[in-house]
Amino acid sequence: MPLELDLQQADFATAFEAFLAHGRDQEHSVRGVVEAILADVAAHGDAAVIDYTQRFDRMTLTPETMRFGADEIAAARAACDRETLAALEMAAARIRAFHEIQKPKDHHHRDAEGVELGYRWTAIEAAGLYVPGGRASYPSSVLMNAIPAKVAGVDRLVMVVPSPDGLINPLVLAAAALAGVDEIYRIGGAQAVAALAYGTAVIAPVDKIVGPGNAYVAEAKRQVFGRVGIDTIAGPSEILVVADGANDPAFIAADLLSQAEHDSAAQSILITDDKAFADAVKAAIAGHLETLPRAAIASQSWADHGAVIVVGDLMADAPALVNRLAPEHLELAVDDPHGMAGKIRHAGAIFLGRYTPEAIGDYVAGPNHVLPTSRAARFSSGLSVLDFMKRTTLVGCDPQSLARIGPAAALLARAEGLGAHERSVLIRLETKAENPA
Amino acid sequence: MPLELDLQQADFATAFEAFLAHGRDQEHSVRGVVEAILADVAAHGDAAVIDYTQRFDRMTLTPETMRFGADEIAAARAACDRETLAALEMAAARIRAFHEIQKPKDHHHRDAEGVELGYRWTAIEAAGLYVPGGRASYPSSVLMNAIPAKVAGVDRLVMVVPSPDGLINPLVLAAAALAGVDEIYRIGGAQAVAALAYGTAVIAPVDKIVGPGNAYVAEAKRQVFGRVGIDTIAGPSEILVVADGANDPAFIAADLLSQAEHDSAAQSILITDDKAFADAVKAAIAGHLETLPRAAIASQSWADHGAVIVVGDLMADAPALVNRLAPEHLELAVDDPHGMAGKIRHAGAIFLGRYTPEAIGDYVAGPNHVLPTSRAARFSSGLSVLDFMKRTTLVGCDPQSLARIGPAAALLARAEGLGAHERSVLIRLETKAENPA
Repeated sequence: MPLELDLQQADFATAFEAFLAHGRDQEHSVRGVVEAILADVAAHGDAAVIDYTQRFDRMTLTPETMRFGADEIAAARAACDRETLAALEMAAARIRAFHEIQKPKDHHHRDAEGVELGYRWTAIEAAGLYVPGGRASYPSSVLMNAIPAKVAGVDRLVMVVPSPDGLINPLVLAAAALAGVDEIYRIGGAQAVAALAYGTAVIAPVDKIVGPGNAYVAEAKRQVFGRVGIDTIAGPSEILVVADGANDPAFIAADLLSQAEHDSAAQSILITDDKAFADAVKAAIAGHLETLPRAAIASQSWADHGAVIVVGDLMADAPALVNRLAPEHLELAVDDPHGMAGKIRHAGAIFLGRYTPEAIGDYVAGPNHVLPTSRAARFSSGLSVLDFMKRTTLVGCDPQSLARIGPAAALLARAEGLGAHERSVLIRLETKAENPA
Repeated sequence: MPLELDLQQADFATAFEAFLAHGRDQEHSVRGVVEAILADVAAHGDAAVIDYTQRFDRMTLTPETMRFGADEIAAARAACDRETLAALEMAAARIRAFHEIQKPKDHHHRDAEGVELGYRWTAIEAAGLYVPGGRASYPSSVLMNAIPAKVAGVDRLVMVVPSPDGLINPLVLAAAALAGVDEIYRIGGAQAVAALAYGTAVIAPVDKIVGPGNAYVAEAKRQVFGRVGIDTIAGPSEILVVADGANDPAFIAADLLSQAEHDSAAQSILITDDKAFADAVKAAIAGHLETLPRAAIASQSWADHGAVIVVGDLMADAPALVNRLAPEHLELAVDDPHGMAGKIRHAGAIFLGRYTPEAIGDYVAGPNHVLPTSRAARFSSGLSVLDFMKRTTLVGCDPQSLARIGPAAALLARAEGLGAHERSVLIRLETKAENPA
């Protein structure tokens, strides 16, 4: 049964903290295993990648067959249902439009001292995109990861997706083609992350690696971080729904289950001010579960990690709890969703009102569905165009402006015991007279 | 002696690649040690922190004395040289002004389908700042790390700085006070990172940890990444100077040494089209080294990691080499620095013209001096206000707009086998009639 908490109960604070602390990540350490795989691929390149693919995916590859051919991708696309392809194209267009808005602006100005200052944004040259295989191989995730990279201006977008026993979801290849992915390799796991980070004879190295994966993939990304950039490490998905009694319990029940069905480690939380409504939602969940294809996973997630929190006054009590939970997805199914959203500081994505199910954001709304999990919304954001760009700052002095700000720099350099720093400024100030710019 | 390469030489490509591959990080693995320290602090809190501080810093602390008192900070400030304090204040004002410009804008709009879309930026609540102790304890770094956090709106900025044998640089405390740091603890190493990440009875946990440190600190940040956010992992500093023969060799020599004096693992590279000028710079370096306080470190860095690359045509040949090197600091001491800057894609910070020594950016120019090292400029940026903020996306549908984009979402959910996702959309479309928003 899901946890039940009431803000009125005497030990609420303690119980809530315990709930916050209750982890969902399967924390078996894979550090050593991953370390060995990375070292092996770094040393032996494609041979090691092919060997691990044989072992883990039961796939026999050669340097020639590691990459999907244009013909295979075209064939996959042709094999897809037309209506679904059209929906995928609509999603891609909406995601592209929203991400275009995120493109950052450069800046330049000359300040009062005559110093030229500014910054400039440029795209990462080569990015790697990890796409899980098997059951969690989602075309929507391909769009959500690949489109921001292409909007940013990444030249070379390299996708890796394992195809255990040779199985691959044709929609995943179609989505990759639609999003403009440049190269696709049928490899996965830590060995694929290693290939992207170190490069092999077949796969040129990339500068940054993004995309979700299992514990081995996450640990591999952690270990190659520094040599390449990575996105935040994704944990199990979660949803927090704040709903008053005026909602249809069946709507809210479906929303809670839409996270629960992802993974038995996923989490769904309801905060309401109406105990009777909470009971109606629980009943509706039981009803939905009778007919849902992934009922087994969803019911286990709901039973193990689900929670219902009843408060006295939603607008007054909910925001503080939401901010402590810092949810990946937040639905505000209340009369004044904007008013409540204004009180929320930590959330990956907010879904406003009774007619904005979280699933709309997973596919077609436009904002990214790659969002910070496990309370990471406290310090990180969903995937965006900025994750595929970087900023270069610019400074320009002439003899006159250097004369104005240089002495302070020389003084601080001296205070830090950095004599060459000091000299590099003073020597220019001294020779300014004879040697104008 | 520094490496010498000539673009004309037959084996230039091979030699240049070898130079790129030549690592400077002292890669002794500290993973196990750090893992043990983190686990110990997570389990035993302050007691473990105090124990490690005794062991590594030869300092006996109690929960009462871990934190610097307002009186100690005031006393430190009073002990500082007035002129240096004034320079520090000027630096702080200029850094604050430049970072204010970086504050991101929120966005909201309603699209053609009537869907409300937007994103909102909010500050991280609590941030931790690691400041190295001993010789590398720089007040300028305190300003560069703390000011962006405060400009972003971080509520609680917590600084840790080890004071081995009780020694602390008063200017570091003065800089922290000037920058608005809220709490300062006299601890360091992996144990300080652990205290910030997990929290102890004395130190409340933070959401993100930034700041440079030794190999133990870097590895500790890597291991706590996910539970808290971290900045990029900093390696040894580097400078790349592109200079034509019209420069004063003594200027350029001082600039190259201003990186070399940081650390024997630092790197200074000169790219020029004038062999005679290159020789003059080398002679000037030898001259400077006779009188510089940190000559021993600087000369070792120059000998072990320095390089001079002679090319035929600076404007035509240098940019491609610069982009491959993706330097932390790039000086363009040429006639048309803006023209050349336009051809540079990967660099942390660019210093324009003959009168902009890199040191000006270390202290008073305004842009941040925390920059991506070891070619990380390929995928990351210098520290900025954005590093202390995160973005929440917003989506709002009403029954009408949901009716327009919902069917495609339901179709994709079905294609991905996610029945509850599909239902959460369809159930609203079906009941739309009876149940308007």
